[in-house]
Amino acid sequence: MLSMTSLHPDRLLPADPGTRDIARRLYAATASLPIISPHGHVPPEWLAEDVPFADPTALLLSPDHYIFRLLHAQGVPLADLGVAGTALDEQGSRRAWRLFCENWTAFRGTASRYWMENVLGDVFGLTDTPSATTADTLYDSIAAALTTPEFRPRALAKRFGISVLATTDDPVDSLEHHRALRADTRFKTRVAPTFRPDRYLESSRPDFAELTKALGHAADIDTSTYGGYIAALEDRRRHFKDHGGVSTDHSHTDVVTLTLEPGEAARIYAAALSGEASEAEATAFRRHMLVEMARMATEDGLVMTLHPGSLRNHHAPTFDRFGPDTGHDIPIGVEFTRGLQHLLGRFGTVEGFQLILFTLDETVFSREIAPLAGFYPSVYAGAPWWFLDAPEAVRRYRGAVTETAGFHRTSGFIDDTRAFLSIPARHDMSRRLDAAYLAQLVAEHRLGEDEAHETAIDLVTTIPTRAFKL
Amino acid sequence: MLSMTSLHPDRLLPADPGTRDIARRLYAATASLPIISPHGHVPPEWLAEDVPFADPTALLLSPDHYIFRLLHAQGVPLADLGVAGTALDEQGSRRAWRLFCENWTAFRGTASRYWMENVLGDVFGLTDTPSATTADTLYDSIAAALTTPEFRPRALAKRFGISVLATTDDPVDSLEHHRALRADTRFKTRVAPTFRPDRYLESSRPDFAELTKALGHAADIDTSTYGGYIAALEDRRRHFKDHGGVSTDHSHTDVVTLTLEPGEAARIYAAALSGEASEAEATAFRRHMLVEMARMATEDGLVMTLHPGSLRNHHAPTFDRFGPDTGHDIPIGVEFTRGLQHLLGRFGTVEGFQLILFTLDETVFSREIAPLAGFYPSVYAGAPWWFLDAPEAVRRYRGAVTETAGFHRTSGFIDDTRAFLSIPARHDMSRRLDAAYLAQLVAEHRLGEDEAHETAIDLVTTIPTRAFKL
Amino acid sequence: MLSMTSLHPDRLLPADPGTRDIARRLYAATASLPIISPHGHVPPEWLAEDVPFADPTALLLSPDHYIFRLLHAQGVPLADLGVAGTALDEQGSRRAWRLFCENWTAFRGTASRYWMENVLGDVFGLTDTPSATTADTLYDSIAAALTTPEFRPRALAKRFGISVLATTDDPVDSLEHHRALRADTRFKTRVAPTFRPDRYLESSRPDFAELTKALGHAADIDTSTYGGYIAALEDRRRHFKDHGGVSTDHSHTDVVTLTLEPGEAARIYAAALSGEASEAEATAFRRHMLVEMARMATEDGLVMTLHPGSLRNHHAPTFDRFGPDTGHDIPIGVEFTRGLQHLLGRFGTVEGFQLILFTLDETVFSREIAPLAGFYPSVYAGAPWWFLDAPEAVRRYRGAVTETAGFHRTSGFIDDTRAFLSIPARHDMSRRLDAAYLAQLVAEHRLGEDEAHETAIDLVTTIPTRAFKL
Repeated sequence: MLSMTSLHPDRLLPADPGTRDIARRLYAATASLPIISPHGHVPPEWLAEDVPFADPTALLLSPDHYIFRLLHAQGVPLADLGVAGTALDEQGSRRAWRLFCENWTAFRGTASRYWMENVLGDVFGLTDTPSATTADTLYDSIAAALTTPEFRPRALAKRFGISVLATTDDPVDSLEHHRALRADTRFKTRVAPTFRPDRYLESSRPDFAELTKALGHAADIDTSTYGGYIAALEDRRRHFKDHGGVSTDHSHTDVVTLTLEPGEAARIYAAALSGEASEAEATAFRRHMLVEMARMATEDGLVMTLHPGSLRNHHAPTFDRFGPDTGHDIPIGVEFTRGLQHLLGRFGTVEGFQLILFTLDETVFSREIAPLAGFYPSVYAGAPWWFLDAPEAVRRYRGAVTETAGFHRTSGFIDDTRAFLSIPARHDMSRRLDAAYLAQLVAEHRLGEDEAHETAIDLVTTIPTRAFKL
Repeated sequence: MLSMTSLHPDRLLPADPGTRDIARRLYAATASLPIISPHGHVPPEWLAEDVPFADPTALLLSPDHYIFRLLHAQGVPLADLGVAGTALDEQGSRRAWRLFCENWTAFRGTASRYWMENVLGDVFGLTDTPSATTADTLYDSIAAALTTPEFRPRALAKRFGISVLATTDDPVDSLEHHRALRADTRFKTRVAPTFRPDRYLESSRPDFAELTKALGHAADIDTSTYGGYIAALEDRRRHFKDHGGVSTDHSHTDVVTLTLEPGEAARIYAAALSGEASEAEATAFRRHMLVEMARMATEDGLVMTLHPGSLRNHHAPTFDRFGPDTGHDIPIGVEFTRGLQHLLGRFGTVEGFQLILFTLDETVFSREIAPLAGFYPSVYAGAPWWFLDAPEAVRRYRGAVTETAGFHRTSGFIDDTRAFLSIPARHDMSRRLDAAYLAQLVAEHRLGEDEAHETAIDLVTTIPTRAFKL
Repeated sequence: MLSMTSLHPDRLLPADPGTRDIARRLYAATASLPIISPHGHVPPEWLAEDVPFADPTALLLSPDHYIFRLLHAQGVPLADLGVAGTALDEQGSRRAWRLFCENWTAFRGTASRYWMENVLGDVFGLTDTPSATTADTLYDSIAAALTTPEFRPRALAKRFGISVLATTDDPVDSLEHHRALRADTRFKTRVAPTFRPDRYLESSRPDFAELTKALGHAADIDTSTYGGYIAALEDRRRHFKDHGGVSTDHSHTDVVTLTLEPGEAARIYAAALSGEASEAEATAFRRHMLVEMARMATEDGLVMTLHPGSLRNHHAPTFDRFGPDTGHDIPIGVEFTRGLQHLLGRFGTVEGFQLILFTLDETVFSREIAPLAGFYPSVYAGAPWWFLDAPEAVRRYRGAVTETAGFHRTSGFIDDTRAFLSIPARHDMSRRLDAAYLAQLVAEHRLGEDEAHETAIDLVTTIPTRAFKL
């Protein structure tokens, strides 16, 4: 990871001097260890093709929904920020950057503020505080840096010390970029695809017939029958595994699970292909398919990760204009205990099966996830995610999970980001927070410092390696 | 605000000496700024008529449901406390005060204890700890003070430095007191009415026909039709606006929203007037009317505030004897993401529309309110309210909301109280807690002290001013 | 309680030196006070018969579901740990102990780690850290100690300073051990049975007819009618009371309450006896019977405690092999406000009725339990329980409950354990955490140190004594 420049070396460490001293020593043990990023959204072509980044806005603002959503709340139109492929010329990009800098105060106390400060300070070596007056200078400095070889994606991956980087990919993806990256022995970061089949499991989608056809095409299997559909999914999982994939990811509204009679599953599948499945049937089918994914995982060994509980595209007018992933996915309450009982009844103690649970609903950390991860050998408590991957939320996560499940039943940190330049800041944040949490255990005489030291290192090495089978 | 006397100057500031030093400096910047109280329940006639307060019990105990509910839990009958208009003579008042003082230990650690200590110490300059032995002396001292001109409502409002005070009023209220206060140039506090139409929107009430008739009478509009009812509501909102109103307040069980077909709304309205609307129809009508309130807000510009999730009058025998607001409104879980989707789909990005969300269910702060306020330009995260407006709960609120929505998408503090004398203590508490929270951000190097200083001031000036359009 | 040996005297006290000093003084005031354990699961025969404990595994691992569940999650089969009566010979016990020691790192940060460290250090005076290399030595040391008179159950109860110990017992239990203990004037600990009728109220159980027959047999009352069934329950409660019982305990999925018409209750009862009650009828009957339990409590004065919200036997294959209480009871969300409205409407203000509410769902602490306990004279906020009886969870509990309900509306600590040797560690933990919490109130100038001192003592003396009518 990066050495620090203008940023305070003690940031995020506890204020109490005695505890801070302990935290400093613990953090020092992990600060420069390689980054393992087993779940995220960096486009693999960036690394495969190693083309320079376009401009500050296209790199730092337009793809970062944390940033553009809060600017939108402040009254800045999404179109002015180049969101969702809205084309911006140099003038537009500069203007977007200025809008961001003018609204810098709105980010005080947010995770975005923390990460961006780290990106500007550490990655670009800039010390000016963003504001109306510094906006253009900052823009120019970043734009200039982006033209240099040091700021090409691969150089940055090396500088960041990223040893493993997982992407998130469509089941029909050829994974050509992953193939190219694996073939290239000069590039040392291991880039793993992640199988994300959500929309191929949601049979009420208007494009379901089309999607399953594409799936069949990719697998070279006739998917006009349920059997073919299952075989094609199995084939594509194999394809991902052959290209270095270690996990599959699933993000539906809930995690209710059930198993349909084979005939019933086939019947609903056929009805869905002709657009005749009811909403209830489609829901049952998706819940059945989640169990099928677990069944396949017990066979091919891919780790299964669940990211439920986001109500996608909350604001219809914004969706209609800008499409998905434009800042208005809003969390809802979620339930794991009852939802997963069927799945875990079938596979919860199957050797080699691994299931990592993420949530946007904090209430389930102590109530459901930690108790599940503290009994089932297959279940891991996933790191805080999305709205919760911020300093205080991470602190609450450790407080809610550790006393029941310890550290070894957790997943290790995931950055889950497409903001490539913020990856080191996010992992560094997590290491600082873990050091702070462990330091508190030491200061309160609940853990020896030697044990805390070992745990801090485990949390960024053996723990993610085991949870994600790396 | 008040200068402190016997109370510790560092109360509520962080224990860590370094962080406390920062917090002290931040608090010093806001301690004496005027109080903006944009939502509360002080009767406007107190200020309009400026009559002396009756006695210690009538002023400090009988109207304060935080106090009398905990005394009730300790076994003190409500009737002995002058609750809900139970008449108490001098003997009874003194006896009630004694019961309170004898139970002072039961309040340890509560918000009420903190406020009352501030009221006794700061407002009355008393230093005795309430107890059986000090009860009478305290009673006499307070009673004596209340006869002096310095303790008349207007003198206190001035001494407290209240620049804005919103009351909560019935739609048919003539607002004569507000008119008188606005006409009186000697009184400097701006007193704004708040339009609170709850019961006029709940068509299953047995008195609905009567209520709508009264509404029509107040507006001089025939409310026997749905169209007239809507017009009357619009008219009364205008009336409130004309008398300085800036917001409307809505406190129903849930915040589900929907829009009925015009004919359907009219049909249910007619059925309700003749007592023939079903419970389900009445619920649909209320949810529809909440959207109508938002629609009107986009037209007249009044800010809309939601205070849902209280199950009113939990204990039927107490309600039967003492009526509403007698200490047994108990919170229930609440949901905003799905509930408000329809309303926000229609008005969420309409220029000038503002919606402030309050909750008694803490789980929605990080899960729903902060994500909504971090996307929609119309949505603000309301300050902690009722059972949650206490030091640790406020701390949790900042921790849950800030990392996603920052400070500028919040409402600023509201005291929501009818305990007039506790207003400075409550606002002072909030300023201390914000100083403490900001100091921690500074101590952990997440914010510069200059930024924290500016934010602390914003939180009691520009932020409430903007959220409530003051 | 015990004096400390190798364990740090300041463990669990706040890291800030000033706050720690206060906490030390507060803790010193309670550290050696007798232990009141008003709810737990120690088998009464241990004390009645005072037989030596078998071996380290049978004493410390096999009965402790916190320990064996986390070992199971780490991949250790339950059968290897002597769980649920799986017989282990000396080899097996030693091997189980070794598996535990080898997995000691998995417990870092957990409550189990904290307790076990206290048991090894304080009860046995051992200082070796468990590991593969120390496992056998530790085993031998513990096994040797267990053969000495000092480690017989009664000697330990005396050494631990346990003044009251409640067990949990079946309604048909003869309570002969309790009778023997009460008759034995040499043994000073008061051992009270607790009436736990869950399965006798769940009429959909396949063995319901058999259970009610046994109940009738115990009470010598014909339970073939609903009237007889009620009379038998009343009789057995009396039996418990006669043997020193002070409370009844109820642990169902939810706490919804209702009262059936007498004829309807009798009808469902009759249907259930012949196996013909529907699931819905059985649920209604159970909810009705919870109210009947409250009604009986208003008559016989037994305190009623509720422990809802655990989904029992989550993993069917484990249940099939090992039976209940084998580590896979997983919490679910729970609701009290609406659920208890009917019961509290009937009995909430009845003199002498006492209802203690426990939860595994933390969200209800601030939202429902504290508001209920802050109004109803009958309701007490139960101490954190099961997955929540760990340092940080206890801290969150105090933070969530105190500001609304204070300290005097809480139950005092319960250990709820069958891990007899951990009882002093658990109570000591609670006293340290209360000292820490109170010290923070003092450090933030919300409470005088004299008040905090008094409160710390109340929390382990008058408060549990009052809540459980001891």
